[in-house]
Amino acid sequence: MATTLKLYEQIAKVLRENIHTGLFVEGDKLPSIRQLVSEFEVSISTVQQAYHQLEMEGLIEARPKSGYFVAHKMDSPDLPITSRPAQRPIEVSQWQDVLEVLLAKEDKQKVQLQHAMPNMKVSSLSPLLKKMSWLMRQQAEISLPYCDIKGTLALREQIVEIATYSGCVLHPDDLVITSGCQEALSVCLRAVTEPADIVAVESPSFYGSMQAIKAANLKAIEIPTNSENGLSLEALELALEQWPIKAILVTPTVNNPMGFSMSEADKKRLYQLAQSYDISIIEDDIYGDISYQSPRPKTIKSFDEDGRVLLCSSFSKSVAPGIRVGWIAPGRYRDKVTHIKYVSSSMCPTLPQLAIADFIQSGAYARHTRKVRLLYKQGRDHLIQCIKQHFPIGTRISFPQGGYILWVELDKRYDTVKVYAQSKKSTVSIAPGTLFSATGKFRHCMRLNFSEKTALEREQGIIELANLIKQQDND
Amino acid sequence: MATTLKLYEQIAKVLRENIHTGLFVEGDKLPSIRQLVSEFEVSISTVQQAYHQLEMEGLIEARPKSGYFVAHKMDSPDLPITSRPAQRPIEVSQWQDVLEVLLAKEDKQKVQLQHAMPNMKVSSLSPLLKKMSWLMRQQAEISLPYCDIKGTLALREQIVEIATYSGCVLHPDDLVITSGCQEALSVCLRAVTEPADIVAVESPSFYGSMQAIKAANLKAIEIPTNSENGLSLEALELALEQWPIKAILVTPTVNNPMGFSMSEADKKRLYQLAQSYDISIIEDDIYGDISYQSPRPKTIKSFDEDGRVLLCSSFSKSVAPGIRVGWIAPGRYRDKVTHIKYVSSSMCPTLPQLAIADFIQSGAYARHTRKVRLLYKQGRDHLIQCIKQHFPIGTRISFPQGGYILWVELDKRYDTVKVYAQSKKSTVSIAPGTLFSATGKFRHCMRLNFSEKTALEREQGIIELANLIKQQDND
Ligand SMILES: Cc1ncc(COP(=O)(O)O)c(C=O)c1O
Ligand SMILES: Cc1ncc(COP(=O)(O)O)c(C=O)c1O
Repeated sequence: MATTLKLYEQIAKVLRENIHTGLFVEGDKLPSIRQLVSEFEVSISTVQQAYHQLEMEGLIEARPKSGYFVAHKMDSPDLPITSRPAQRPIEVSQWQDVLEVLLAKEDKQKVQLQHAMPNMKVSSLSPLLKKMSWLMRQQAEISLPYCDIKGTLALREQIVEIATYSGCVLHPDDLVITSGCQEALSVCLRAVTEPADIVAVESPSFYGSMQAIKAANLKAIEIPTNSENGLSLEALELALEQWPIKAILVTPTVNNPMGFSMSEADKKRLYQLAQSYDISIIEDDIYGDISYQSPRPKTIKSFDEDGRVLLCSSFSKSVAPGIRVGWIAPGRYRDKVTHIKYVSSSMCPTLPQLAIADFIQSGAYARHTRKVRLLYKQGRDHLIQCIKQHFPIGTRISFPQGGYILWVELDKRYDTVKVYAQSKKSTVSIAPGTLFSATGKFRHCMRLNFSEKTALEREQGIIELANLIKQQDND
Repeated sequence: MATTLKLYEQIAKVLRENIHTGLFVEGDKLPSIRQLVSEFEVSISTVQQAYHQLEMEGLIEARPKSGYFVAHKMDSPDLPITSRPAQRPIEVSQWQDVLEVLLAKEDKQKVQLQHAMPNMKVSSLSPLLKKMSWLMRQQAEISLPYCDIKGTLALREQIVEIATYSGCVLHPDDLVITSGCQEALSVCLRAVTEPADIVAVESPSFYGSMQAIKAANLKAIEIPTNSENGLSLEALELALEQWPIKAILVTPTVNNPMGFSMSEADKKRLYQLAQSYDISIIEDDIYGDISYQSPRPKTIKSFDEDGRVLLCSSFSKSVAPGIRVGWIAPGRYRDKVTHIKYVSSSMCPTLPQLAIADFIQSGAYARHTRKVRLLYKQGRDHLIQCIKQHFPIGTRISFPQGGYILWVELDKRYDTVKVYAQSKKSTVSIAPGTLFSATGKFRHCMRLNFSEKTALEREQGIIELANLIKQQDND
């Protein structure tokens, strides 16, 4: 896309290059707005826009009354070690443990580090709530009839728009709206497999997708991941050589639970592997729009030439999960996906779809995601600081590239299932690592959420958690 | 339940008996309110309540300025002949045809006889819309987080209440809320079967359940039904003897597409058959609450001693389909059902659940269903009259005991798939009989809706349809 840069973008570009080349380094004060106005001969608001852009990118930070400074870059922590799951197809277990976490009542008194819930208190969500309320007042009848089985056209059109940011050229007819990403994943799994087939997944990976594999009578083969680069393509290739794998289910951009984003080059290689072994890719992009990078990373789907990628997403992580609006870009599996979505739950309710469509079209979705990305990035840096300070030595932490969850790997002698059990009587809640394995591995790991605590609450939660862990030294 | 009758109920009982014993016959004028006030020594409003009750039961009718009369009983029309489907397990086909009907855009100019849509213009729905609007205004935030995976407790409590009218004693923990009855059926099918299992269904039966059977990699065996008594228990028993049937999926109360309700005795026999062959029953009760009978017929679930019945329903037919609130009482399959519901679409949105809970608790649901039942019964009688008058001789019509759809069987020489194709360019829309067979049988049948047309529109639609049919006499 050869587009001419706007004035403020040109200025932002110059400043960005100056930071990247080291002309300005961390902590340096940047030129004042006045200086830049005269240097570039532009208006104050243009310079402000340029600074705002760089702030959004996390490159610079505003300090009240002092001006703009180059942001401190967080050093990545000691990263978790590449996982080494069994390289053979297995039945997924762990349902009872997942169920227990799902049934856990929210306790407002607790520091909630357990669920992958976004921050829902930010003011940038209010246009959505206002629109829903307005629709309910003015057009309540739209809630009553069945809607198009593929979903409301107005929403599909807007999803086409946002998908361009991840490099996808879609058409509204290529989309099927679902009840969240969970339904999207379940439907896609059933569309590309037959019972007893083998599906490759990242290890660790989201328990909802593994349970969907179980419920579809499939077997999982867990492919090791590296907390920096994501899925091990070497291990995947070995597995593909050895087993008749039918599909691979991946979360390559802002992974749950690790937080990594695979590089564009690796995404391309993954796609090529899928091509040469003729398997399909179910790509879960649920956190993609709250990547800290700007522009957001491309999806594997953006390289899809022959329709073998089924892109799944929802607004559960970027907006709010209770809205239950998700979608599939099913590529060549469109008819099968439409069939299975229909039998799975028939149509989705109209009103939330219209509200989300309006939220996107009005620009409020872009504003909201820009805002929360910054908030989450700060949360990540703070949480990592707290963990480094309070957890036992030997603790390794993933370094998420977006979203609001990270993965903690303790020394092997610690047992997070025990920590989890004890945490029920404490003021903090966690998700034990075992949930993210098909067979209860990662017993020394856990996933923590950093979406909506104040710094104080977060640190208190981490101190409490550290104490629970350290108790095991006395066992 | 030994309860003492209220005053108005006692009076209604006396009058009812007088009608049943023939003291008053069809068309007779009933005593005036004044007469009964002095005869029973009660208040005017008590007599009015008694008459209102009998009116709701369809026994009597009010004529403006003249008083109350014994209602005209509709003679049942010439009924369709018992279907004779192949008695062996088969793969379900017909998806392309179902899809075409699902994708058909609603055309407000047309007389819609095609979709099983309830009347959504009745004023008795407005408390629901008002509550949804109020919730959105006052408690918009409840739309944002995930809700309990089994559904909102307030709703499950209310469903326990309404289920008592069908003879069921349930507990909120025995219920799982779903995205409509379609998800309920799909989840239950997957919970009680393994791929390649055989499921018995009524023939004809609802295309959504048959497509769910297909998508779950199951085979269907179609059991003949009789338009008066429902499923042929003899044929079912033969099939059970011959094939390893795993479950039976039935709509025994106000069947779609036939409209019959099986007798209580037959429901019990069906349950006993399931017991002796140790199979489970998936009971679709989606139209049960809009049965014309009062009190409504009992469910098979009400006889369930060992938890083998999975009762499925939703508010799509009794209230409005766009609300997408359904439920399962899964009996002994609770854990499996909870698992599959979770992977299928995770939680359901909270707001519609709360609104429906309030609609029930306030009594508005009971008022609404009482009102539409009467409306639909009048619709049925009128539609049957129109068909008798305009359709070719030899036409047979089912005589629904509730709901707003009926089944028309034409002489074998007519082809409703052709009628359906031609109707696309006409002012009327129909559902061809082939959709209700696993393999495209019932080509001389169709299902017609009578939920919300005026008498004039309905008759015009039927005349147009009759012309399309009669054109085939010249082919
Ligand atoms: C990676 C991933 N995929 C899918 C889902 C399910 O999302 P939804 O709530 O939209 O069904 C989640 C939610 O936790 C998730 O983390
Ligand atoms: C017999 C029957 N079961 C289930 C359904 C699906 O209902 P819902 O819209 O609640 O998913 C229908 C809808 O047409 C139906 O007629």
